[in-house]
Amino acid sequence: MVMRKVAIIGVGMTKVGHLFSESLRSLFSKAVRSALEDAGNPKIDALYVGNMSAGQFNNQENIAALLSDFAGLNGIPATRIEEGCASGAGAIYNGFKAVASGSHDFVLVGGVEKMMDTSTCDATSIVSTVTDQEYEAFLGLSLVGINAMVMRLYMNTFDVGREPFAKFSVQMHDNASKNPYAQFPFKTSMDKAMNSNPVAEPIHLMDCAPLGDGAAALILCPEEYAKKFTSSPVEIIGAGHGMDTFIFHTRDDFLSLKAIRDSARDAYRMAGITPGKVDLMEIHDSFSITAFLTIEDLGFVEKGATGQAIDEGLISLDGPLPVNPSGGLKARGHPIGATGVYQMAEVVLQLRGQAGARQVPGAETGLTNNISGFGASSYVHILRG
Amino acid sequence: MVMRKVAIIGVGMTKVGHLFSESLRSLFSKAVRSALEDAGNPKIDALYVGNMSAGQFNNQENIAALLSDFAGLNGIPATRIEEGCASGAGAIYNGFKAVASGSHDFVLVGGVEKMMDTSTCDATSIVSTVTDQEYEAFLGLSLVGINAMVMRLYMNTFDVGREPFAKFSVQMHDNASKNPYAQFPFKTSMDKAMNSNPVAEPIHLMDCAPLGDGAAALILCPEEYAKKFTSSPVEIIGAGHGMDTFIFHTRDDFLSLKAIRDSARDAYRMAGITPGKVDLMEIHDSFSITAFLTIEDLGFVEKGATGQAIDEGLISLDGPLPVNPSGGLKARGHPIGATGVYQMAEVVLQLRGQAGARQVPGAETGLTNNISGFGASSYVHILRG
Repeated sequence: MVMRKVAIIGVGMTKVGHLFSESLRSLFSKAVRSALEDAGNPKIDALYVGNMSAGQFNNQENIAALLSDFAGLNGIPATRIEEGCASGAGAIYNGFKAVASGSHDFVLVGGVEKMMDTSTCDATSIVSTVTDQEYEAFLGLSLVGINAMVMRLYMNTFDVGREPFAKFSVQMHDNASKNPYAQFPFKTSMDKAMNSNPVAEPIHLMDCAPLGDGAAALILCPEEYAKKFTSSPVEIIGAGHGMDTFIFHTRDDFLSLKAIRDSARDAYRMAGITPGKVDLMEIHDSFSITAFLTIEDLGFVEKGATGQAIDEGLISLDGPLPVNPSGGLKARGHPIGATGVYQMAEVVLQLRGQAGARQVPGAETGLTNNISGFGASSYVHILRG
Repeated sequence: MVMRKVAIIGVGMTKVGHLFSESLRSLFSKAVRSALEDAGNPKIDALYVGNMSAGQFNNQENIAALLSDFAGLNGIPATRIEEGCASGAGAIYNGFKAVASGSHDFVLVGGVEKMMDTSTCDATSIVSTVTDQEYEAFLGLSLVGINAMVMRLYMNTFDVGREPFAKFSVQMHDNASKNPYAQFPFKTSMDKAMNSNPVAEPIHLMDCAPLGDGAAALILCPEEYAKKFTSSPVEIIGAGHGMDTFIFHTRDDFLSLKAIRDSARDAYRMAGITPGKVDLMEIHDSFSITAFLTIEDLGFVEKGATGQAIDEGLISLDGPLPVNPSGGLKARGHPIGATGVYQMAEVVLQLRGQAGARQVPGAETGLTNNISGFGASSYVHILRG
């Protein structure tokens, strides 16, 4: 494949939350307008949008044509990617390839999920449709159930308690308290995190990402054009897409996610870097245990050692490897199909030095990781400012 | 964009119908196995799957990872494209670009829809979610309602009766009677077509495509590798993706579909041919009126003249431009997200000379057209045998 270098020249996000005054289309349009304004209003050639389930949440399919029309982009080719919780990164990956291959020059990549117009009970049930309906969800094994079993196994295998997981969540809320786009922009405490209600033992409420509405957008173009639009383009230097078996019980190893390992290997190779070169990252902490496995499978710490590394300050904003300066899925929020795009928008702001109170000083290289289900698929992207 | 020539080296289809003994995954796997066998079992590098609404029909999202795993293709990058009724062609278009750009060599493109596990009433309602939920579907304007208004306008504008539309449907059933994959492989009569129950006047039952389950698959690779696998590769020589406004009432012209015109223009240009060079085509006759507009917007007859052209034998199997030798959506069936892939599989069989009793003699160039909603988007592909 003949590759052009690809830059991000614009980002846009809505605050995540229970946005009852917004619809699927109004949310998406807001993110698009912000991204276009941020990029200096280039003419867009194509749209890729990530969304998990407008069908179930909003009784609306065929959404690429709808969203492009209502966002004022009618007429350009528009494509929806669905890949569960990784739909956002899937849209980025396909948009990246479209620009890299020369298929399109200016590509808008968006992600949107409008989840809160259904009941919390229905929304939780819909989120479970990213797992296997026949072997898992229908039998009552929800995503939180899978994560609870894995967290128990992790705790037993590596002899750790719930404290390191709670500490991760406290850090996420610390970060979110400095993020104007965050759903929960407030700090919490170890006491509150440890004593929050149990959801599926050993997972408590403060180990879980919330439900929420949100939309985010990016504008990609060939690096050679980027300087016309911004003085601080951010380049996508690595991209990888990994897969694993779909059903949890068919995995070789319950404490390691092959899809993350494979996507990271490919992204590091394309970028020509080792994990040590990464200055900060946005990862998929749908549950605190998922974050632990991810930090390990991305190659930053040994299996079982994440808790100790957090204790030693690894992931804090002023530590050697800040994780989720946005507050992550836990506290920035997790509007499913938009999450991968939020992750990348945050890293772009960080690499531009525009992340305000949550800025990681001197960040030059950032990584994003977005997974579907319990790691049935995974995308890793690496950015350089 | 640096383009490699792309060939189709394998096709697979299930018979369309109410397949109560099949699931989403078993259906898809059958089509994949047939396509792999047809191509001589190449090693597949990536999967693109078109599906409209496994979320609403089957309570299942994240289906690319699921389907690749159950079809025995675990580990390769798998991507789901959702674009309403054009999801199948959307998957083809993205698979075509992946091979053309050099991103992947051997790409499996599939389409699947398992619609009949819900009630007919629910399925009809779900199909309406490809139209605008806020401005159309919620207010009772279903897809058949839109088509009925357009058919009435067409009949008034061009002073034609229902007979030419019925004649189209009779031709579709004639063709399907020769197709082992067809949902309705039987002939019908003008009397039966004219006197079938009204659905939304002037549309009667025999003007409508049925609901049904089905899956189809294609294997694409660079043309330079194709000869190793088949003595009769079929080349994709043109591809176009057109868009229109999403809501019906915002269109400039209710009797012409801009998305079809634009996608056809781009596909003809890429192929370097005029409509006159097309030997046969598979088009999107979700309703007989849709077929009339399509035949006109693809550039084959003047506006309003399709009925007369059908009377003169234009579209019959031994006519100058056979339309839907498979029986079309009307009689081969319309498993929504799979339809675009069925269309292309049929054209491949025709260009190979393997279409049995429905073979169009000497066919060298074929065209497919797959649209979403009432032409919110459209794909045209042109194939050469």
